[in-house]
Amino acid sequence: MATAPKALLFDVFGTCVDWRASIARAGEALGQRLLLPPTNWLAVADAWRAHYQPQLESVRSGHRPWTRLEALNRESLDEVLRDFGLEAVPATERAAFNLAWRQLAPWSDTVPGLTRLKTKHIIAPCSNADIALSVGLAKYAQLTWDTILGAEISHTFKPQPATYLLAAAALALPPAEVLMVAAHNEDLAAASKLGLQTAFIPRPLEHGPGQTSDLRPEYPFTFVATDLVDLATQLGC
Amino acid sequence: MATAPKALLFDVFGTCVDWRASIARAGEALGQRLLLPPTNWLAVADAWRAHYQPQLESVRSGHRPWTRLEALNRESLDEVLRDFGLEAVPATERAAFNLAWRQLAPWSDTVPGLTRLKTKHIIAPCSNADIALSVGLAKYAQLTWDTILGAEISHTFKPQPATYLLAAAALALPPAEVLMVAAHNEDLAAASKLGLQTAFIPRPLEHGPGQTSDLRPEYPFTFVATDLVDLATQLGC
Repeated sequence: MATAPKALLFDVFGTCVDWRASIARAGEALGQRLLLPPTNWLAVADAWRAHYQPQLESVRSGHRPWTRLEALNRESLDEVLRDFGLEAVPATERAAFNLAWRQLAPWSDTVPGLTRLKTKHIIAPCSNADIALSVGLAKYAQLTWDTILGAEISHTFKPQPATYLLAAAALALPPAEVLMVAAHNEDLAAASKLGLQTAFIPRPLEHGPGQTSDLRPEYPFTFVATDLVDLATQLGC
Repeated sequence: MATAPKALLFDVFGTCVDWRASIARAGEALGQRLLLPPTNWLAVADAWRAHYQPQLESVRSGHRPWTRLEALNRESLDEVLRDFGLEAVPATERAAFNLAWRQLAPWSDTVPGLTRLKTKHIIAPCSNADIALSVGLAKYAQLTWDTILGAEISHTFKPQPATYLLAAAALALPPAEVLMVAAHNEDLAAASKLGLQTAFIPRPLEHGPGQTSDLRPEYPFTFVATDLVDLATQLGC
């Protein structure tokens, strides 16, 4: 039986918020305002997100210095718009569209779940998002974090060990008293290897109805819950 | 006329919470539980706080590496207890007493003021406290910060420029869009020199009824308010 965790760290994109539908909606609105040609905005969201891991890897590998996710997203956007034939979108609109990552809708259980979990635990994101993006998103989606931890504290990105370990260290807690919550097996596997407790929450629609990855837990995690409300119940909140 | 600030940064000890009376109350409780000799616990609080600036200066000057405030406080406590003839306090009780800095009472206007200010602004501490201490104190005193900024982000202490500038940078805001709120003239003077907006809130009882410092603003600050509720009114919250 694991010790009761004192702090809960959360992956955010996919685990707490529905980035795909939210980015597609922001794209639809942009397309209508600028009278852009008909565009599959869900495909734009997927393409934008596909740049994510290669961008992070360029920092993780040391190929480029620490760079905020929001700046990486802004670079990727130029390539995505070019690939979809949307070069006409002007720079000010691109900057505004990039801020759509601060306005992602939470899953229906996220706010009630976090509210209950916060009564007995410190709750903080341990996300690859930078602090500015995370603060903006928290205000929009009503994620009542106690503080923002994650990539910007460690100046690298998950699954690098420093991102998890420095989040626990910032709370002055040993990894065993910290529980990482995510909808992604590899994120939790990395945390588990470092001694953190883990909770898997499936988000089978993160990548849309055809999703094939992360439908179930693939490692022996400390907790498996149907959603954040169920996790609160399992943790006695 | 200054631009409306997007984020408000707060000094915490003295500005948001009454450290002196709170530490003295924790000391009283400790003395009763351990049957210690009669002790002036307000004097203990003052003596403990008197170690604060010399301790911070040892890090600011580069004489010792970055060290969390909570660890510095723990070191100072040993000297204070020795000076007051309280060597009998055992190590586990010293560790618990040190955590009293996470349980300081807010001034009566602090929670209602922050609640109003948060409706229109990002609010975060820019304190010399570390993240773990700040998170614990925020949960105890119901300070609903959007995130924790300050010394630990910069690995040095105020009034070093990095502490203010990296707080603004973490929010991806220029200093001119950030307002520093404090009850201490020198804290605000340092922030002002870096281009931040400033708000002075007098806390004439921070050091007890005989306080002679920081009774009034000594520089031309952007705002002067009677308390945080008044500041909320002045900012249209």
